[in-house]
Amino acid sequence: MTDTVSPFAPATFPDLPSISGVTFHTAASGIRYQGRTDLMVAELAPGAQIAGVFTLSAAAAAPVLWCQAAAKGGRIRGLVVNAGNANAFTGKLGMASVRRTAGAAAKLLKCKPGDVFVSSTGVIGVPLPDDKITAALPGALESRAVGWETAARAIMTTDTFPKGSGRTARLGKATVNIAGIIKGSGMIAPNMGTMLGYVFTDAKLPAAVLRALLKPASDRTFNAITVDSDTSTSDTVLLIATGQGAEHPAIRSANDPKLKDFKAKLEDVLRDLAHQVIKDGEGATKFVTVAVSGAKSDASARRIGLAVANSPLVKTAIAGEDANWGRIIMAIGKSGEPCSMDRLKIAIGGVPITQAGAVRPDYDEAPVAAYMKGDEIVIEIDAGARGRGKATVWTCDLTHRYIDINIGYRS
Amino acid sequence: MTDTVSPFAPATFPDLPSISGVTFHTAASGIRYQGRTDLMVAELAPGAQIAGVFTLSAAAAAPVLWCQAAAKGGRIRGLVVNAGNANAFTGKLGMASVRRTAGAAAKLLKCKPGDVFVSSTGVIGVPLPDDKITAALPGALESRAVGWETAARAIMTTDTFPKGSGRTARLGKATVNIAGIIKGSGMIAPNMGTMLGYVFTDAKLPAAVLRALLKPASDRTFNAITVDSDTSTSDTVLLIATGQGAEHPAIRSANDPKLKDFKAKLEDVLRDLAHQVIKDGEGATKFVTVAVSGAKSDASARRIGLAVANSPLVKTAIAGEDANWGRIIMAIGKSGEPCSMDRLKIAIGGVPITQAGAVRPDYDEAPVAAYMKGDEIVIEIDAGARGRGKATVWTCDLTHRYIDINIGYRS
Repeated sequence: MTDTVSPFAPATFPDLPSISGVTFHTAASGIRYQGRTDLMVAELAPGAQIAGVFTLSAAAAAPVLWCQAAAKGGRIRGLVVNAGNANAFTGKLGMASVRRTAGAAAKLLKCKPGDVFVSSTGVIGVPLPDDKITAALPGALESRAVGWETAARAIMTTDTFPKGSGRTARLGKATVNIAGIIKGSGMIAPNMGTMLGYVFTDAKLPAAVLRALLKPASDRTFNAITVDSDTSTSDTVLLIATGQGAEHPAIRSANDPKLKDFKAKLEDVLRDLAHQVIKDGEGATKFVTVAVSGAKSDASARRIGLAVANSPLVKTAIAGEDANWGRIIMAIGKSGEPCSMDRLKIAIGGVPITQAGAVRPDYDEAPVAAYMKGDEIVIEIDAGARGRGKATVWTCDLTHRYIDINIGYRS
Repeated sequence: MTDTVSPFAPATFPDLPSISGVTFHTAASGIRYQGRTDLMVAELAPGAQIAGVFTLSAAAAAPVLWCQAAAKGGRIRGLVVNAGNANAFTGKLGMASVRRTAGAAAKLLKCKPGDVFVSSTGVIGVPLPDDKITAALPGALESRAVGWETAARAIMTTDTFPKGSGRTARLGKATVNIAGIIKGSGMIAPNMGTMLGYVFTDAKLPAAVLRALLKPASDRTFNAITVDSDTSTSDTVLLIATGQGAEHPAIRSANDPKLKDFKAKLEDVLRDLAHQVIKDGEGATKFVTVAVSGAKSDASARRIGLAVANSPLVKTAIAGEDANWGRIIMAIGKSGEPCSMDRLKIAIGGVPITQAGAVRPDYDEAPVAAYMKGDEIVIEIDAGARGRGKATVWTCDLTHRYIDINIGYRS
């Protein structure tokens, strides 16, 4: 399934700043895959703070339920992530399995089980052989610490390339570091496409501030991407602050103006990671930006954008390099959001197409048709609802390869 | 595009009862297609009553807006349907075009323009050359009346077979007839997949009763099917009563118990037509029934059903003949509807798969895997929400052919 690498895969893994207070280890536990690492363990220095955002699925997997509860404490000492089995829809056995994994890691890290976060990604509905994880944990933690790329590779499933991103930010007079890794290549797949992201900073930020930073930034990044409209039962993004970097003024509120640059750089990292998930989207050959303005509210703009980004007809047209703006109109229409057909404006690649409820009399499709052959497509929509709502969402095209990947039998 | 006929196409067009008070004519107006009829004109005897249901798209096409207004009058004398151009997103020009078409037909039929209903299906955003329709109308109306199948063929676009259905019903001591035709093979396509349906009865029913009958029956039939989650800007279903059949007791309310059999048979016709649209769904190789029970309400059950029926991952799994129930769990989870993972029950082909939030210990996939090779797949879901809500929705699988059909350039 993963023998074809995404055309968007970078030539090399990015050079990420190191975050003091976190060390990564990996192991091959043999849960499902042969001949590769499938277990990532991160050890956090005492005092590390954490916030998380999680799938809204009513079928959230056992490790998600565990992390949601643990995140309330705001502390983290250990993170255990396995690839190959999602431990989702596994009932009471599934939760017992998470408890044993967290317990075993806590014993080794000399902390409380509630300070250990656990993620699992892979097939749904198959009991997780957590004995393989607990057996591999001591060796993993004793093994030499690994770098970002090795950690990113250990959590991959259908991903065709490891994904990471980092920035430095000014915080008062100090320079702090932000870096993270992510996996995911469909919004979901029992064929293992769940999105799991882990972002670290060496800044000293309390959990309450991390929570207040993570939620809105996630809404504009991870929650603004879609491959196929399907939602994983396991999606998890954790933001962890070790507080082991350069000294900086104490931050007690997410509204502190000193956070301005940090907020911008954090969102850069989250957006970059989110874009990499789309660029590794199952079968993706085009990276598509849908920028909506003129909507009643930001939320309305986002729903319009997602209606376009999720439309199979829009996505197949883009795969076919067809400047089929009629399908964009259709998708906007079906969104059910306030918009005015008479004032609606659509542009592709910066070329305005519509006015007064119809195609512009001077519209020349030739330059747009040429633009559609590129691999990054920008669609701009003014909803004409006389509002200031705006939102940008990202998606990829819908190709034969998506079908190939997902039509295949699980085994 | 339409050179491959759906595997579900019937060997012959069904034998439908004739409805006195309606005559069909067809013509080749040359709007877009060559060498085939593309215009259907129905003439209704004076006194015919009408009700309609229409797309909820905010981008509803000009003919839809016209029909919505005309349906308020409750009378119909003429119906003009063209294939090849949807007259959608055509601004003021588009509405002027409908007005000229209705005006020309009204003149020939000696009625008011508001008693003429107009539908258009085909490409979006291209001005409709209505002069070709008005030029073809006199000859069409003078030509020999045609039967159901010929009428059904004249309104086809990407359809691979003509679609019709009919029943007889008891109304008091009388026997009345119901018959209709429909076109559609995607929920929408600017590549011409809009659903247009016309159902006739020779019963004598006032428009208010027709409206009260059509809405709930449409919700359980046309509004319970999905090919690709996309919504046409032109979807229209009209229910027309000529009152020219056998004498029957006067009916003044849709709640009249004498309508019991008529209601059942009408819904049979609507359901059969809706199923034919799915069976001609773009690229369909499997006809899929998703029956949901145990939900908080019927509306909730319907949303759960549609989340499953619209999931690209569920639909590709079915195309791959994979009994991938994990994807069904995922889709239920993302619906956001109340359900209990612990009480949730899923069955495929009547074989129960889950219990207590996990796969049943005795679950044997072999018979389900064999069942998936059939061409009709039934998925039953008990949401476990301890409610009485239930709903059934229908869809088809998502195959390479869907991509082939929709990836192609418009011309």
